[in-house]
Amino acid sequence: MAQIIEPRVLKGFRDALPKAESERRRLFNAVEAVFISFGFAPIDTPCLEYAEILFGKGGGETEKQVYRFNDHGGRDVALRFDLTVPFARFMAEHLDELALPFKRYHIAKVWRGENTQRGRYREFYQCDFDSVGSDCPMADFEILSLMLASLRVLGIGGFKIRLSHRGLFNRFLEAQALSSASVEVLRLVDKLAKIGAEEVEKQLSELVGSEKAKKVLDFIHPEVDYLATLDKMTALAGSSAGDTERLRALHALMEESGTSAFFVLDPSITRGLDYYTGLVFETFLDDLPGIGSVCSGGRYDDLASLYTKQKIPGVGASIGMDRLLAALETLSDSGSQSASASVLVLRDPEIESALPFKTAQSLREEGIACEVYTDKKKAGQQFAYAEKKGIGLALMAAAQGSFSLKTIATRESRDFPSLAEAVDAIRAILAKKPL
Amino acid sequence: MAQIIEPRVLKGFRDALPKAESERRRLFNAVEAVFISFGFAPIDTPCLEYAEILFGKGGGETEKQVYRFNDHGGRDVALRFDLTVPFARFMAEHLDELALPFKRYHIAKVWRGENTQRGRYREFYQCDFDSVGSDCPMADFEILSLMLASLRVLGIGGFKIRLSHRGLFNRFLEAQALSSASVEVLRLVDKLAKIGAEEVEKQLSELVGSEKAKKVLDFIHPEVDYLATLDKMTALAGSSAGDTERLRALHALMEESGTSAFFVLDPSITRGLDYYTGLVFETFLDDLPGIGSVCSGGRYDDLASLYTKQKIPGVGASIGMDRLLAALETLSDSGSQSASASVLVLRDPEIESALPFKTAQSLREEGIACEVYTDKKKAGQQFAYAEKKGIGLALMAAAQGSFSLKTIATRESRDFPSLAEAVDAIRAILAKKPL
Repeated sequence: MAQIIEPRVLKGFRDALPKAESERRRLFNAVEAVFISFGFAPIDTPCLEYAEILFGKGGGETEKQVYRFNDHGGRDVALRFDLTVPFARFMAEHLDELALPFKRYHIAKVWRGENTQRGRYREFYQCDFDSVGSDCPMADFEILSLMLASLRVLGIGGFKIRLSHRGLFNRFLEAQALSSASVEVLRLVDKLAKIGAEEVEKQLSELVGSEKAKKVLDFIHPEVDYLATLDKMTALAGSSAGDTERLRALHALMEESGTSAFFVLDPSITRGLDYYTGLVFETFLDDLPGIGSVCSGGRYDDLASLYTKQKIPGVGASIGMDRLLAALETLSDSGSQSASASVLVLRDPEIESALPFKTAQSLREEGIACEVYTDKKKAGQQFAYAEKKGIGLALMAAAQGSFSLKTIATRESRDFPSLAEAVDAIRAILAKKPL
Repeated sequence: MAQIIEPRVLKGFRDALPKAESERRRLFNAVEAVFISFGFAPIDTPCLEYAEILFGKGGGETEKQVYRFNDHGGRDVALRFDLTVPFARFMAEHLDELALPFKRYHIAKVWRGENTQRGRYREFYQCDFDSVGSDCPMADFEILSLMLASLRVLGIGGFKIRLSHRGLFNRFLEAQALSSASVEVLRLVDKLAKIGAEEVEKQLSELVGSEKAKKVLDFIHPEVDYLATLDKMTALAGSSAGDTERLRALHALMEESGTSAFFVLDPSITRGLDYYTGLVFETFLDDLPGIGSVCSGGRYDDLASLYTKQKIPGVGASIGMDRLLAALETLSDSGSQSASASVLVLRDPEIESALPFKTAQSLREEGIACEVYTDKKKAGQQFAYAEKKGIGLALMAAAQGSFSLKTIATRESRDFPSLAEAVDAIRAILAKKPL
């Protein structure tokens, strides 16, 4: 006999067992239905691309974390590390085929060989949606509205979308003669939630002096409401400009649509060194602020500059599905299998018969998911199977055309003279049961 | 300005534009709903695994086609080339956590560096479903029933599931003293559809002599019906045994459930050198037999022998989704974008207003997918956008609370004093439109 190979997955990778995968698919399907209802369409791109496409001519910090190798044909290839770069390549390649504004979503896996110590995985999902080809306040607002609708459908409780504008931040840095240190300032401001205002001020002071550090701290501190914050930001930037007007227009749209309670103007939101040039935003759960932003994004003025001379502006967001799933998981019970069926249709272990399949088919036609027990096992073992899988009901067809319905938890049975009556009883029980 | 990188994908890879991806997701969601209604649960496994796990200690023919490389940690890793091997590893690793019979489905991408000349892609989807842990005729029949239900929901017209039994074939080979040449005989029989009976007989004659070649041809030729074929197979194998009885029990279940018209006992079906040991089957479309089998599989007596000493028998099938999609695509019209929305909600290019978003929200609450046009463009350009995306209707909210509904194809408009009346009209139009 050949030697056994130890069954195992790579470090930083994991299997999804039925319970986890069912929950993931439930969330994906829920947001997907919202995307489609907003007229956003799905696309897909290859998991493997030319390394040159993913990294540009240069290289960079991300490159170290990427799965990169030479394929059979000697091509320098890599697994995608996000959905944004492939989307930029996609837009440049297919621009002529698409109607603008082009609104797409993409839910797919990406890979990064990151340090796994902080609970990070090397294979994970991203869920991105963008509207490209338009630079209007209404396009920004549409993405914000779609975020709202998506997060609401996920049933994650209260949340706030904290937003700002990178252009206004940059004008502020210019007005304070801080442009030359902008990269470092952005990096520090981005750490605010992690290291606290005091530490940010200390490090900023070392970088640009205490007076300017105070100015930065003043700028990033939100005032009592959206418009007061906007007024202060504008004053510290020296004057009003397109960025101020954009934030004001967005506020008017929020007010008019009755959604302003979900939004906070928070100038400390910068999205660090990302490629955003306009609106930027992050989303925090009221009950679990510690898990970080669950939906982030912003506006960019040139998505695909690496691949085309044509300017493609757009606005987009990314929902942190794995983060949301982990949050929801901590709140639910454990167990590796969840029932995908509501009813186990039992079989008589003594005979091979199509009766259980016909019974199951009738239940399915009534919209009741059910599973046939196919193995030649005694009733007790069939019940134990239902119990292990979390299936609450078992139905047995008797030869005389009657049906016996058993509640697995109590092992109580009720007999019904017809399937129609058994179906009514099943419906009544399932209607009471919380999902 | 940096040099432009030519936007392109790797040979054998492709983007999915909205129309293709929408169609793919429609098919996936349809079969997924059937799987769930049968109590089959989703799982997922990593795309990247230890090469040792995927190939075993040895290697083999498939290995040449596989994307294999050393990762950052110097591990010998590879992209999965099918969903079966990872599933075997999964079962060995999680056996203690799962209730048997374990019924799972898995729809995911796999990668093979195959020759792309014959329209093959190097990245494609597989859609597998298996029931493992049981070796009963009813478990076989459940997989066949699930295949039937899945293929029917896809709306692909008529089809036949052609099945046989590898154990019975092997007994026939023994009875004819052909066991020593079984690999070559299987290979040749598997080519029957491709090269024809005459060529198979010729090559068989060269291999085992003309008398035995005739016997093989006789064995693989179906008789007038299922039971007549079974009788002949059994006679040529020398006697009845468990395999004959299994095929007989399956026939009884088909008859009893009224599905026998979908099944043909076809002894030429062997699944070549696959790991099957019992039932084997392939599925052909009545209208497009040339595209080959669209759903294949069978029973195996030891899924995970590489990874565990515990025997895990099972039965499973794989739907050729890419093949089905290509078949459906040839029948439908072209175009890169399909409308995911039914209605385009127009905007007044002169004002930024939340009115279109509120109108859209009301439509969505009525179950009508719609998209807001967010860009500051004139009405004509907004109509052109709808036309390019294949959106048939445009709705414009007027300031006075009335609504104008335009049919894009004819540019005809109708005015409605309230949104409720416009919704009724939209519903009536959509109900008439074929999807």
